Amino acid sequence: MSAAPDVTALLADLRAVLPAGAVLRSEEVLRPYECDGLSILRELPLCVALPDDREGVQAVLKICLRHGVAIVPRGAGTGLSGGARPVCGAVLLSLARMKQIGAIDRENRTIRVQPGVRNLAISEAARPVGLYYAPDPSSQIACSIGGNVAENSGGVHCLKYGLTVHNLLELEVLTVGGEILRIGSQAPDSPGYDLLALMTGSEGLLGVVTECTVRLLPVPEHVLVLLAAFSSVEAAAESVSAIIAAGIVPSGLEMMDRLAIEAAEDFVHAGYPRHAAAILLCELDGPVVELRERVREVEAIHQGHGASAIRIAEDAATRMLLWKGRKAAFPAVGRLAPDYYCMDGTIPRQRLAEVLGRITAWSAEYGLRVANVFHAGDGNLHPLILYDANAEGQLHAAEEFGRRILELCVAVGGSITGEHGVGVEKLDSMCVQFNAAELAQLHRIKHAFDPEGRLNPGKAVPSLHRCAELGAMHVHHGQLPFPELERF
Amino acid sequence: MSAAPDVTALLADLRAVLPAGAVLRSEEVLRPYECDGLSILRELPLCVALPDDREGVQAVLKICLRHGVAIVPRGAGTGLSGGARPVCGAVLLSLARMKQIGAIDRENRTIRVQPGVRNLAISEAARPVGLYYAPDPSSQIACSIGGNVAENSGGVHCLKYGLTVHNLLELEVLTVGGEILRIGSQAPDSPGYDLLALMTGSEGLLGVVTECTVRLLPVPEHVLVLLAAFSSVEAAAESVSAIIAAGIVPSGLEMMDRLAIEAAEDFVHAGYPRHAAAILLCELDGPVVELRERVREVEAIHQGHGASAIRIAEDAATRMLLWKGRKAAFPAVGRLAPDYYCMDGTIPRQRLAEVLGRITAWSAEYGLRVANVFHAGDGNLHPLILYDANAEGQLHAAEEFGRRILELCVAVGGSITGEHGVGVEKLDSMCVQFNAAELAQLHRIKHAFDPEGRLNPGKAVPSLHRCAELGAMHVHHGQLPFPELERF
Repeated sequence: MSAAPDVTALLADLRAVLPAGAVLRSEEVLRPYECDGLSILRELPLCVALPDDREGVQAVLKICLRHGVAIVPRGAGTGLSGGARPVCGAVLLSLARMKQIGAIDRENRTIRVQPGVRNLAISEAARPVGLYYAPDPSSQIACSIGGNVAENSGGVHCLKYGLTVHNLLELEVLTVGGEILRIGSQAPDSPGYDLLALMTGSEGLLGVVTECTVRLLPVPEHVLVLLAAFSSVEAAAESVSAIIAAGIVPSGLEMMDRLAIEAAEDFVHAGYPRHAAAILLCELDGPVVELRERVREVEAIHQGHGASAIRIAEDAATRMLLWKGRKAAFPAVGRLAPDYYCMDGTIPRQRLAEVLGRITAWSAEYGLRVANVFHAGDGNLHPLILYDANAEGQLHAAEEFGRRILELCVAVGGSITGEHGVGVEKLDSMCVQFNAAELAQLHRIKHAFDPEGRLNPGKAVPSLHRCAELGAMHVHHGQLPFPELERF
Repeated sequence: MSAAPDVTALLADLRAVLPAGAVLRSEEVLRPYECDGLSILRELPLCVALPDDREGVQAVLKICLRHGVAIVPRGAGTGLSGGARPVCGAVLLSLARMKQIGAIDRENRTIRVQPGVRNLAISEAARPVGLYYAPDPSSQIACSIGGNVAENSGGVHCLKYGLTVHNLLELEVLTVGGEILRIGSQAPDSPGYDLLALMTGSEGLLGVVTECTVRLLPVPEHVLVLLAAFSSVEAAAESVSAIIAAGIVPSGLEMMDRLAIEAAEDFVHAGYPRHAAAILLCELDGPVVELRERVREVEAIHQGHGASAIRIAEDAATRMLLWKGRKAAFPAVGRLAPDYYCMDGTIPRQRLAEVLGRITAWSAEYGLRVANVFHAGDGNLHPLILYDANAEGQLHAAEEFGRRILELCVAVGGSITGEHGVGVEKLDSMCVQFNAAELAQLHRIKHAFDPEGRLNPGKAVPSLHRCAELGAMHVHHGQLPFPELERF
C-alpha cells in the first residue's frame, strides 16, 4: 500500500453509499470480527463494511481502490485457516447481509443464492420440493455459501458428491476494481478458461462473489449407516481400501481413533464401542433395492478385516445418533484439554497406518495428546493436537508438531490441506508443497486479477521471499524467477 | 513477434536436440499437418517438431523462446474448431510420439499417461483389470489424451461421467519458458488456485501438457440401451426433461432428428424407425438389480410422451448396432452433400423445441439442409449444415447460418461451445458470449502464463479489437479497459 489512507474521509465515503449502521468502526462493535475460526490470531480491522446488495459491494470496492486501502472479504467467519482473518489497516468486507435466496429451478435443479446465505439454509429452502444441496461442512448451520466457494468446502459427503466446485454452476464475481464477471454456465462445458474452478478455493484473493448458482440433488430414496469396530487402525484402514476397491461409493466413510471415540462417547453418548482401537462409520444412500446388496457387501468386507460390534442404523433417529458422535468429535475432544489445534491434510489412503504411527511417536515426543478423526474414504486426515496455551511452550510445540504432520502429508504424496484452505495458517507449509516456479505461477494468477494486491493480502500463497527465508524452497541460481513478483 | 527469425539457425538448433527425423521441414512432409479437424482452413507451419520425451519438449520450448518463434501444440489433430491448426511462421509442436502408458494404480484406480496416448488406448490398457477411462469423444480411436485435456473433451457418456476435467487428477505441464509445473493431486482438493481446471480446456494457450494422471472407473456390471421413436421433436424433448426430472442419470441420452435418422439408417442399417420425427437413445448402466427398475421407469416416461417402437438392447451386439447409427451420424450425413459444417453449442434443455424450430426456419431461408444430432441429456446441440463449397456463396451462407445458431444459443441462456472448443472457428462468437471485462480477464490469465503470447497465438480468445470491430461487444466509454492488453 502507498501513503497512509485518510481514515476519516474513507469512513465518510463508505457511510455515504451504504445503509445506516452498515459501517462499523468503534472497538466494541469491531471486537466480534477480530478473528475467524482460527481464533489464536486476533487483529482488529480498520472498519467493517456490511453492504446488502451488489451495488453496495461495488461501491465499497471502488472506494477502497480510491483510498488505497486493502479489503478482506468475509462470509460467516467460520473458516479454520484464517482466510477471513482481519488485516490491520484493511476494510473487512462482510457479505453476511446478502442473504437472498432465489426461486428453485426445478427443471434444471438449480438455485441462485447470495453469498451470505447459510449452507444449511439452501437445503432447507429446497427440501419442500425433495431436493438438497450436497456439500455439508461441519459448520453448515453457520457457514455461508460465499465462504464455501472461497474455501472450496467439503464435508462428510464429498466422497460421493464432491466439493463445492463440483456443485457449483455459475458465479457472479466483482473484480477488485468493481467490474462484474459472470462465470460458468448451466452447460456441461463453458467457453474460455475455467474461471469458475479458478475462483473456487481462491480464498478471497481474486474477486468477491456476489451471487452463486448451485446444483441441487434429489433427496436419496434411502440412507443407512453402518458402524464397525476394529482392534487396530491398520485393520480399519484396510477395510476402507477394500470397500473402495470393490467399487462401492459410500456417501460417507469416516474413521475415529480411540481417543476421539472416548471423547465423543463421554460427550454425546452415541453408543460407540468404547474400547475399539478405531471405528468406521459408513453411510450408504440410494434406491432401497440397491442398498440391500451394498450393505451386505460392506458388512462382509468389514468382517473379513476382523470387525466386531457391527451395527446398522436405518431409521433417522438411530442414524442421527451414530453421526452425532462424529459430528461432535471436535468439541468433544476440546473438553479434554484447554486448547486444541485441528490439522487438515490429505494422504494416499494406503499410507494411513504409517502416518498415524508417526503421529503417535511425535505425540510422545512432544508430550501432547492427539485424537484422530479421518475422512477415510478420501484420505483427509484431521489430527486434533491437545495443548494448553497457558503452559510454557505448549502452543509453540503444538504448532511445530502440526507443521511436521503437514510435511509428512506432502512427503507421502498427499497435500497440506484437505478442505480447510491455507489462509494464514499454512503459508509456510505451502513452501513445502510447491517449488518456486509453481508458487510464482500462482502469484502471476493473482496479479492477473489484482495487480496491486489489495484483496485479502498476505493470505493463501506465501511470498517467494518467505519461502526462501524458510529455506524450504528451491531458488534458481539465487534468483527469484519472475522479477516483477519481487514485491510479493 | 519481433524481428524475423533465422530459420536456418532455428532448424539447426532443433535438430541438434531432437532425435533424427523429429524435425520436419519439406513441404511434402508438412502437408499432412496443414490443418486439424477444421479442414476448411489450411496453412503450413514453419516446421513440425516431434519430441519423444519431456526433455525434448523442454528443449523445443527454450529454442523457440530464444528465436522469438511462436509454438502451436498439437495432439492427434482431430479437433473440430481449429485449435491445433498451424500458424504461419510458428513451430508445430506435435506430442504424438509421447505415448508411454504407465502402470495402473489399482488401489487408487488411476493411470499415468503421456499426452500422445490415444483416448481409447487408455481403456484398452485398463480393461484387463476391469477398469476403463470414461470420457469418450467420437474420435476416441484417434484423438489423444493431451488433446482431450486441451479441449476438455466430452462424449456421449459425459452426462453421467463428466468431461475430461472431471476425470483428471494430475498434470505435468511445461510453461512457455520450459519450467515444469506439477498441478492437481490425488487428493479431493489441492492447495493453491485450481490450475488443473484452468489448464483443462485452455486449448494450448497456457502451457504444454507432458503427462496426465487420469481416473479409471470399474466397467459397469450391466449396460442396456433403450431406443424410442417420437412423432415430434417436442415430445422427445419433453421425455428427456421428464427422465432428468425423475432423478434418473442415464449414461447416455441422445436425440436424432428425421434427416439424421434417415442418413444413418441408409449408411449403417441400425434398424432405426425411418419415419420417426425424432428418436431417443437412452443408455443405462449399473448393477443389474437397479437397471431393472430404471428401464421400467424410462419406458413408462417415454410411453407417457407418446413414444412408439420402443426397443431394449441388452446384449452387446444389439447395443452396438443401436449405437452404430448414432456414432456414424456425422459421416452418414456427410454422404448427403459434398460438405457439411458441424456446429456445437449448448442450450437449456427446455428451449430445445424452440431452438430447433428456428433452425428449421433458417434452413429454409438459406436453402441449406440441416440434420440434428443432440446430446439431449446435457443440452449439447450438434446441427450439421449441409452445403457445397463449390456452389457460389454456399460456404459463406453455411458460416453465417452457423454463427446465427451460436448467437441463438447464447440468447436462450446457453453457450457457443459444448465440447469442441473455440479454436479459430468461434472467435467471433466469443464476442457475443462475453463482455469486454470478461474477455480482458481471460487475456490477463493468458498474460500470467505467456506474457509474450507465443503459445498458440490467435486462438480461443478473440482480441478486444476484433470484438470492438465486430460491434458485438460493449466497450466502456470507447476505451479498452486494460491498456496493457491493447496489443492482443
